[in-house]
Amino acid sequence: MPRTFTIFGAGLAGALMAVYLARRGHRVELFERRPDPRRGTPERGRSINLALSTRGIAALEEIGLADEVLRSAIPMRGRMIHPRSGPLAFQAYSKGAELAINSVSRSGLNSLLLSAAEREPGVRVHFSRRCLGMDFDTGKAEVLDVESGRTETIDTETVIGADGAFSGVRSSMQKRDRFDYSQDYLEHGYKELTIPAAPGATHRIDRNALHIWPRGTFMMIALPNQDGSFTCTLFWPYKGPHSFDTMPSGDAALEFFRREFPDAVPLIPNLKDDWEHNPAASLVTVRCAPWNVAGCAVLLGDAAHAVVPFYGQGMNASFEDCRSLARHIDASPDDLRSAYERYAHERKPNTDALAQLALDNFIEMRDKAGSPAFRRKKMVEHALEALFPRWYTSLYFMVTFSHTPYAEAKARAERQDRAVRRWTLGLLAALGLLLILAAVILIAHFVTRKFW
Amino acid sequence: MPRTFTIFGAGLAGALMAVYLARRGHRVELFERRPDPRRGTPERGRSINLALSTRGIAALEEIGLADEVLRSAIPMRGRMIHPRSGPLAFQAYSKGAELAINSVSRSGLNSLLLSAAEREPGVRVHFSRRCLGMDFDTGKAEVLDVESGRTETIDTETVIGADGAFSGVRSSMQKRDRFDYSQDYLEHGYKELTIPAAPGATHRIDRNALHIWPRGTFMMIALPNQDGSFTCTLFWPYKGPHSFDTMPSGDAALEFFRREFPDAVPLIPNLKDDWEHNPAASLVTVRCAPWNVAGCAVLLGDAAHAVVPFYGQGMNASFEDCRSLARHIDASPDDLRSAYERYAHERKPNTDALAQLALDNFIEMRDKAGSPAFRRKKMVEHALEALFPRWYTSLYFMVTFSHTPYAEAKARAERQDRAVRRWTLGLLAALGLLLILAAVILIAHFVTRKFW
Repeated sequence: MPRTFTIFGAGLAGALMAVYLARRGHRVELFERRPDPRRGTPERGRSINLALSTRGIAALEEIGLADEVLRSAIPMRGRMIHPRSGPLAFQAYSKGAELAINSVSRSGLNSLLLSAAEREPGVRVHFSRRCLGMDFDTGKAEVLDVESGRTETIDTETVIGADGAFSGVRSSMQKRDRFDYSQDYLEHGYKELTIPAAPGATHRIDRNALHIWPRGTFMMIALPNQDGSFTCTLFWPYKGPHSFDTMPSGDAALEFFRREFPDAVPLIPNLKDDWEHNPAASLVTVRCAPWNVAGCAVLLGDAAHAVVPFYGQGMNASFEDCRSLARHIDASPDDLRSAYERYAHERKPNTDALAQLALDNFIEMRDKAGSPAFRRKKMVEHALEALFPRWYTSLYFMVTFSHTPYAEAKARAERQDRAVRRWTLGLLAALGLLLILAAVILIAHFVTRKFW
Repeated sequence: MPRTFTIFGAGLAGALMAVYLARRGHRVELFERRPDPRRGTPERGRSINLALSTRGIAALEEIGLADEVLRSAIPMRGRMIHPRSGPLAFQAYSKGAELAINSVSRSGLNSLLLSAAEREPGVRVHFSRRCLGMDFDTGKAEVLDVESGRTETIDTETVIGADGAFSGVRSSMQKRDRFDYSQDYLEHGYKELTIPAAPGATHRIDRNALHIWPRGTFMMIALPNQDGSFTCTLFWPYKGPHSFDTMPSGDAALEFFRREFPDAVPLIPNLKDDWEHNPAASLVTVRCAPWNVAGCAVLLGDAAHAVVPFYGQGMNASFEDCRSLARHIDASPDDLRSAYERYAHERKPNTDALAQLALDNFIEMRDKAGSPAFRRKKMVEHALEALFPRWYTSLYFMVTFSHTPYAEAKARAERQDRAVRRWTLGLLAALGLLLILAAVILIAHFVTRKFW
């Protein structure tokens, strides 16, 4: 029996979910607070490109869009580390650099998914309509027509809140009793800057790498765009002696870049202007529970679990949500309450694990990626993966290139790390014992000859 | 220069704060969402009595109300443990039972504070007015007239949000960028039941004790009221085989009470009726930061830091907030931003510590208070306090009977525990060595006589 799903949010997760549901014969009313992104320019300050990896690709494959998306994506086969001085260092994501994550345009992918949704006969898309909140007992949702400023009340059969980190659906849930909720901001914000294309739409630095300028307490990264440009993102504290708050002027920023990112200065000709006009944006982790209100409403993507971007998994996790939710709706289309609860039960431990992994990876990227110890660790990881493929898989591989649930990947990596430490210690101890034994034998031999 | 403070919430903290500010020559507009509590009956299901202790008393002393409050309070000198069977056990809060916490009526104290506020010429109180939210840039607050249903916009110079755990002021702060926020519900709720007075308004069980029925994963407590009755509070899971969800009927509750709290059954004649009509209420911990928006608004009491009730410190901590905020406003009345920031800087680590202590104390009360090990621990604590008064002070004493900041009390108790463990281990080790030495001497002696 087909149902009518009201989806708030036609971003990446909402649009994909609409396609999934429509393909299963359901009707979808898809509301998006922004105007149609396919007409007009995308918002400034939203991340411009994203890293699409295995989990996200699998979802796109299911709706037949993976090939089209990957054709216009740029594979990044490893990290390119930019030190303050000295040569660049490339660290492949896999031993033979055959594995890659894919830099895709957020707006391009969103447009593609919207068009796919609109091609489905069961989907109706309503732009410039924002969910202000809803009453779960009656199913009535308050929707603001952003253009006219009027508010209308719509009736819903069941709602999917895919309306992002600041979800209106979730804010109504938060007013209910016993809804656990947290929003935690990083002390760092980010600012986007552009490395324009070289003549002939070619890239000024290696296009098949994710570029990182690790600087201890802060860092800059750059992802390639299809048009030859790169989008750089500086992650920097809001407060303190060196921070967004204390350095508003482009001149000061240029000075700072000359000191910290000397090789980037000639690549970013509009640095001063970009600095003064692009806003610094904040980074938030959102956790909540429960994700559903009976069979009336359920959260999806950032609305359920906004994470910081440092594992490049936000979109990939949201696409995994869509697959999971569609599967559970398939299993019990007449009992959405169970479907939503099983989906949340499956996903919540994994997105909680991802939230932590993403926070940890900020430290790893900004602080450790540049160090010789980190490079050695990556070499040992690749060696272990090659020597004991059944027994050792790196955390980065599991998260990025496998479908191992995030929580399982996190737990397994912790077990592996403990085992490696134990074996290393054991080997060292055995070696030490052997050395002592050898010494004793040698001394005994020496003593024997000398005195006996 | 006098300022005009708009305070949302005329509960315990808001009313006290109004008195503090008025005494310092400021004007106060005090808004309360409920009607005047001095006319009509108090809400059902709100906690009826509270434990007033040293920190709270100090604030009441400053405004000259402590004597009046303490005259109608009932001192509780320790815990009275009610096991499933067997005799009651009294655990004094101090060795000689000279220290007491005070059971006071929430509505009585609130009325007293409201009247004190109204006696101040600078204070105007507005009942049935609820803050829906505010715009911090313009200082305009939206206030709902609960009786007429009309919304009005009022101009504020500066706002104190004392509007409780579900603060409207705070919910406006939450919509701003980089506001950290969490609300965490316990899996347990609570339900209030009544032990009526015996003839002649006397108490049916010891009036000078906080009664506890510890049962491992749940518990009941009872605090004495002035009229001879006790208010019992059952803390019980919402979900699971034995829980509020699965036991809605009074008959089942009676059965449950006969098994778990046999001595309480004859004391609660209206058990079945109370059970079915008193709602189960939830328990939440709220943490947030920052507590202020420049000099425009600041949070106070539960609005800033709702805690679970298991340390009996919610009101006491809020009164300490009032003292701290008044002191910082005194220090820089012309720079409220600094005043608010210094107040938050002082209080936030302490209320964070209290939130954790209150959660921990639930485990201690429900799970450990009944055990012989806990009784021994309390005896050792009292002995250490008597033997080494400078060096050892119990956590409960510091929290309840001193002005030691909560965070300091928590850290000191942790240090003390570690030291006690270390000394105990050291003593045991020394004793063990002595025993071994004695054994060796004895054996040597024995061997000497026998074989030499």
